[in-house]
Amino acid sequence: MNKGRFEAFSDSVFAFAITLLILGIALPAFKNPPPSERELAHALLRLWPNLLAYLLSFSVIGIMWQNHHALFRLVDTVDRMTVFLNLSLLGVTVFIPFATSVLGAYPTMRSSTFLYGLTLTSSGSIYNLLLWHVKRTGAFHANVSEAAIRQTTIAYRVGAMTYAVATLASLVAPVLSFALYLLVAGYYLFPRGADADLATK
Amino acid sequence: MNKGRFEAFSDSVFAFAITLLILGIALPAFKNPPPSERELAHALLRLWPNLLAYLLSFSVIGIMWQNHHALFRLVDTVDRMTVFLNLSLLGVTVFIPFATSVLGAYPTMRSSTFLYGLTLTSSGSIYNLLLWHVKRTGAFHANVSEAAIRQTTIAYRVGAMTYAVATLASLVAPVLSFALYLLVAGYYLFPRGADADLATK
Amino acid sequence: MNKGRFEAFSDSVFAFAITLLILGIALPAFKNPPPSERELAHALLRLWPNLLAYLLSFSVIGIMWQNHHALFRLVDTVDRMTVFLNLSLLGVTVFIPFATSVLGAYPTMRSSTFLYGLTLTSSGSIYNLLLWHVKRTGAFHANVSEAAIRQTTIAYRVGAMTYAVATLASLVAPVLSFALYLLVAGYYLFPRGADADLATK
Amino acid sequence: MNKGRFEAFSDSVFAFAITLLILGIALPAFKNPPPSERELAHALLRLWPNLLAYLLSFSVIGIMWQNHHALFRLVDTVDRMTVFLNLSLLGVTVFIPFATSVLGAYPTMRSSTFLYGLTLTSSGSIYNLLLWHVKRTGAFHANVSEAAIRQTTIAYRVGAMTYAVATLASLVAPVLSFALYLLVAGYYLFPRGADADLATK
Repeated sequence: MNKGRFEAFSDSVFAFAITLLILGIALPAFKNPPPSERELAHALLRLWPNLLAYLLSFSVIGIMWQNHHALFRLVDTVDRMTVFLNLSLLGVTVFIPFATSVLGAYPTMRSSTFLYGLTLTSSGSIYNLLLWHVKRTGAFHANVSEAAIRQTTIAYRVGAMTYAVATLASLVAPVLSFALYLLVAGYYLFPRGADADLATK
Repeated sequence: MNKGRFEAFSDSVFAFAITLLILGIALPAFKNPPPSERELAHALLRLWPNLLAYLLSFSVIGIMWQNHHALFRLVDTVDRMTVFLNLSLLGVTVFIPFATSVLGAYPTMRSSTFLYGLTLTSSGSIYNLLLWHVKRTGAFHANVSEAAIRQTTIAYRVGAMTYAVATLASLVAPVLSFALYLLVAGYYLFPRGADADLATK
Repeated sequence: MNKGRFEAFSDSVFAFAITLLILGIALPAFKNPPPSERELAHALLRLWPNLLAYLLSFSVIGIMWQNHHALFRLVDTVDRMTVFLNLSLLGVTVFIPFATSVLGAYPTMRSSTFLYGLTLTSSGSIYNLLLWHVKRTGAFHANVSEAAIRQTTIAYRVGAMTYAVATLASLVAPVLSFALYLLVAGYYLFPRGADADLATK
Repeated sequence: MNKGRFEAFSDSVFAFAITLLILGIALPAFKNPPPSERELAHALLRLWPNLLAYLLSFSVIGIMWQNHHALFRLVDTVDRMTVFLNLSLLGVTVFIPFATSVLGAYPTMRSSTFLYGLTLTSSGSIYNLLLWHVKRTGAFHANVSEAAIRQTTIAYRVGAMTYAVATLASLVAPVLSFALYLLVAGYYLFPRGADADLATK
């Protein structure tokens, strides 16, 4: 499998899934069609949970795309198992717009926050599987250090576990778990000092 | 026709079609708008046929994309007939999200499983036509062995015929044919030992 | 403007617009929700005008993409006016899925066939403007022959005029104009003998 | 972060967002299903505000894409903060189809024109932040002149401020602000003489 075409296909799916998120924000129909200024303003303001869910998922897919990029920059060969795991990852990514629309519609309910968390936990788990497979088959570039691999392994495990904990939290406190998803995404998304030297041409 | 732009266009269409599949999963409107926890959970669980259809079609398009990649890696020149057959193939691929949404909505009915099977059989047939045209015009790379071409020919024929049989089965036993589609997709999708050496940089 | 990024952007829009066409085919809601086998089959069969409109527009956008490719392969530099005309062309292309859904819903009415024809005529006209601008600014590759440019000019004029005639026909005979759109698209789409030598690596 | 994959991802999102705009134009359902020729024609003509909003947003995203291209052609390195600001910019871009559909549906109301203006002002502001960050970290190519940077800085500030003024105008005169958005987009979109020498291979 040609690595370039593999990455381009993945990038297209990430970019498309991140764009489809906007379909989760839609103005509900008005009972008496031409709404008053007040009714329209209220209808727009009532969309804030959808907007929050949009921002959350935009961040999540943005982070997943960056992770994908960071991982495959270090990888030399793409075998069929990698393609299979990657397709699974994309399948979960494409599912995010649906989970997001449910979360935006019912932001304080157990089923919606649980479904959303399950989606994130699945994507985190598949990243761990991908890393495990790449390590096991020695597909890393020769000049990738053991330390870098160990660090990535820990980061991936922590990520998946945090999502799993937030998912379980949704069964008792849905709003808390929504807040946790936002916190985790915010933490990963916002650039921190230590990462500055990752900048390359 | 520049082969790079031809492949990039095809990849984009595969990536969009695979992402549009998610629009086939949608929460139905509730009769008494704010649903109870129980009602929301049930509504989500009742979407399992849509989810199954989503997973099936994601696998199917994923496999088609891999096939496309595997075939055109061996091909040197892209003439107008190849572009025409390829557009036909993409036309069938883009149709899959519609066939999937019908299958997800009515998973046990004859028309929906037949329509879905017809779509798969068409794509399989066009792959056979594409291969036949490429062979006939000598568009393969010089270093592609006769044995490899023969093996691909057999695999393509078996694929299209299996789909055709599953499609006919839908007329008497729709659920069986749905199960067959899943089995065939699972068989082609999951990486097997013998393919491991296909891995290239 | 970098020609590569310009072409990649255009290709993405073509590929995305061609995929969005499928949203014009949707199963109407049933009055008594679980339809009988007969009702589902009839509902699917009644979608044939939508399917025909889909096939037509898939061909039309496929042809436009090939034209785009053929034209810009001969072009060296992309100035701001070219970018502007190209954006106009993409704006018309993205409008096609809407015109298609109207045509599919009302295939025998004057407004829908006229709107569709207007869209095609606009795209044909912009291609003529693009060609005129490229010729005027001498942006063609040095090795593009006068004869090739003259031939393309004639082909573009004939194309736009044919569309214009079919559009006008829609005002008196909508079904005839729909048939004309199909004929013209079929004529351009299907590979003919004389084009075989256009095949390049 | 590899600049090529960063640009390709951004281009894909711009291309998808610009294509999704078409979903903001939809034929409303007819009360007595098969409409008369007159009813269909009227229904189509009544979509002119949606069409105008479509043309506006198509121009806006087209301009944003050109700006993105013009800025990053001058930039050497892409650090994590640039990726973060760029994701924010893409998040605003993807929001445009929603703001456009609201504007198209209610073109003369304060909330809709304000929301639309807020979206444009946000995108203009993020472009200013991006430029500020790129300047501050010295990420420009060595051969980019001070004069060019100063000129871009002024253009970006004027752009964001014009959008801010038009947004505020929406609170008192929605139709005027809609007209202003159109004027500004038209001004930036249409190629002018002075830019002709920007043309490069």
